[in-house]
Amino acid sequence: MVHEIPSGVTAPAGFSAAGTHCGIKRSRRDVAIIHSHTPAVAAGVFTASRVQAAPVLVSKQQLRSSSTARAIVINSGNANACTGERGLNDAWAMAEACATALGIRRTDVLVSSTGVIGQYLPMDKLIPGIAHCARALDGTGSHDAAEAIMTTDTFPKELAVRVPLRSGTIVLGGIAKGSGMIAPNMATMLAFITTDVDLPPAVLRNALRKATDRSFNRITVDGDTSTNDMVLMLANGMSGIRLEDPGSEDFIRFYNALEYVLIRLSKMIVMDGEGATKFIEITVAGAATEQAAVQAAKAIANSNLVKTAIHGQDANWGRILAAVGYSGIEFEPAEVEIFFGNVPILQRNYAIDFSEADATRILQQKEISITVDLHQGQSAASVWTCDLTREYVEINAHYRT
Amino acid sequence: MVHEIPSGVTAPAGFSAAGTHCGIKRSRRDVAIIHSHTPAVAAGVFTASRVQAAPVLVSKQQLRSSSTARAIVINSGNANACTGERGLNDAWAMAEACATALGIRRTDVLVSSTGVIGQYLPMDKLIPGIAHCARALDGTGSHDAAEAIMTTDTFPKELAVRVPLRSGTIVLGGIAKGSGMIAPNMATMLAFITTDVDLPPAVLRNALRKATDRSFNRITVDGDTSTNDMVLMLANGMSGIRLEDPGSEDFIRFYNALEYVLIRLSKMIVMDGEGATKFIEITVAGAATEQAAVQAAKAIANSNLVKTAIHGQDANWGRILAAVGYSGIEFEPAEVEIFFGNVPILQRNYAIDFSEADATRILQQKEISITVDLHQGQSAASVWTCDLTREYVEINAHYRT
Repeated sequence: MVHEIPSGVTAPAGFSAAGTHCGIKRSRRDVAIIHSHTPAVAAGVFTASRVQAAPVLVSKQQLRSSSTARAIVINSGNANACTGERGLNDAWAMAEACATALGIRRTDVLVSSTGVIGQYLPMDKLIPGIAHCARALDGTGSHDAAEAIMTTDTFPKELAVRVPLRSGTIVLGGIAKGSGMIAPNMATMLAFITTDVDLPPAVLRNALRKATDRSFNRITVDGDTSTNDMVLMLANGMSGIRLEDPGSEDFIRFYNALEYVLIRLSKMIVMDGEGATKFIEITVAGAATEQAAVQAAKAIANSNLVKTAIHGQDANWGRILAAVGYSGIEFEPAEVEIFFGNVPILQRNYAIDFSEADATRILQQKEISITVDLHQGQSAASVWTCDLTREYVEINAHYRT
Repeated sequence: MVHEIPSGVTAPAGFSAAGTHCGIKRSRRDVAIIHSHTPAVAAGVFTASRVQAAPVLVSKQQLRSSSTARAIVINSGNANACTGERGLNDAWAMAEACATALGIRRTDVLVSSTGVIGQYLPMDKLIPGIAHCARALDGTGSHDAAEAIMTTDTFPKELAVRVPLRSGTIVLGGIAKGSGMIAPNMATMLAFITTDVDLPPAVLRNALRKATDRSFNRITVDGDTSTNDMVLMLANGMSGIRLEDPGSEDFIRFYNALEYVLIRLSKMIVMDGEGATKFIEITVAGAATEQAAVQAAKAIANSNLVKTAIHGQDANWGRILAAVGYSGIEFEPAEVEIFFGNVPILQRNYAIDFSEADATRILQQKEISITVDLHQGQSAASVWTCDLTREYVEINAHYRT
């Protein structure tokens, strides 16, 4: 049971945030800070790529050294990736500048960047920019921060929920960015989550990993994975509620709320997919294992042929079945059923008996749900993606220049 | 040492072919037969998909029962995939009709289909069409056959080579189709290869598998894999030359010629990629193993972001490095060098010192070669792909309708 409330990372007690402009981008906000008034338990999930940007290396290092943090400093417009030793020094300098501005230790600051790869950060602009951003910190600054982490995003992404527990009420909030290069394992997506609950570090880490696997790791726009992805979470305990036992009813409510927030932010990212005109939910049911369901659903969601067919409002179920066929899972093709919304498109033994009008009516909608029932077992999973359009090509053919 | 000669599958001694129209397509050729005047040793490589079309199941069955064949019958316009028991019966009926028309046994006929998935073959048109096609068989019919197997292809693909051996001269020929859905493991591509050499069945099978892995399995247009892919080869021995020892110099010349033919046909398929404006060769060098080189090269070649950047003539090397990063291979990012043609774009330790003018000059060409040197070992591999364009989306958004 969660109740959505306005705001994002500043909704939980004891957090402030800001988003300002320092000149990496021409005129839009490009620096953000999220600040906890007290030391917060911290956890992170990072890109699976072998090529990890400097801020990824620095934030991983910080989380290895300490299980708490006080602030996250983020810039957009420049990824500080493939920048070698100098990039690493720049990322540490970002943490230092943020710590100085807030009067905390450098070890309490996590760092994040997003934008173009292979260019050095303009530190002459960024360092004073961080100081300026710190002065703007405010208990209602979430929206500005959400704007300041955008790159090709067309809208800021934020969300907060209030969660009644037996022991009281807690709040979770989040902001995210991402529109192109969204893929399994979080390509060029950033998300920052706050909560006022108190959790042991290992419990927070496990919860964040599991919820990320079921949300950000189940969205895909084009199958690419970036060098900068990260999900960072701060839990500052300001609600006075401590959850120690992952088996308790209160913890389960907290976890479900966390998964809810991450899935809602994930869907916002897909809705903002570069050039996308349709939001597509692919559910694979009747799978032998959840892993097999995810694998098959991702193969469908990553198929350019499926994504273009849906863009063209073409009920081309053959491409869906073909994608399951090469996904690598074991199944019996003649057992498969495919539904568009509630309309059965393919039935067992390749029986096809649907009206093109019904299929088209569903494919004309902006949000489309496709279900594939493998009839192999009891497991199911959903992934979220968008259609592939001429505009995607347009945007990505000319991003850097 | 190979010499290209005009023609295709009918270039080797003892083969005839035909391509005619039976009415599956509105007006273009849609039935082909390739016929060997004597029993030929036969081998095949088939789609890795779990969803295998009826002709795939039938041809695999035929090759399991007998190591020789006399004919291949092919239709385009309908894939006979996802058609269950009735589709299987139809595929066997194609073999039967071809055998009857040629006065050979049904066990001597291999079957292939390509086109739309999930529709039954119009047997009332196809069976008389096969008889008609058999009457058109001709020692110069390769070009008609190459036309008859086209779907969204914009040009027929055929090739023949004469190969001088110590023991005499042999000839290899081939035709192929494929333009969209080309992917690792041969998505919707068909190739038929003939030769007048005599080979033991196991030697032919191994040679065809190896050469396919280094050619058709190294091209990709959009990463999708189809239900109907196959490469079939007939070796009828009419040259009087028998090659038994895979270690002999003559065999090695034969194998190199086979690989040459398959790679040339592979490149024709990529050049005909749906909506493509550029042919791209991706070479990964300095890899620890050939497998690692292929894996990294395919990750680059399948990246929509790389393919759109090249389409936009944007020297976005960051996307190339990012693709290697998520390819799953082990490497040290700071060691990587990237070249466009001969122009060094990225040097070790992320050193970047190239003129945009030089990079643009290369990216403006129609054929682009990109080399990534990992500096990890001595292995290298190339894969071939094309750019991703608005036209690709256009074609695939409305293929079925």
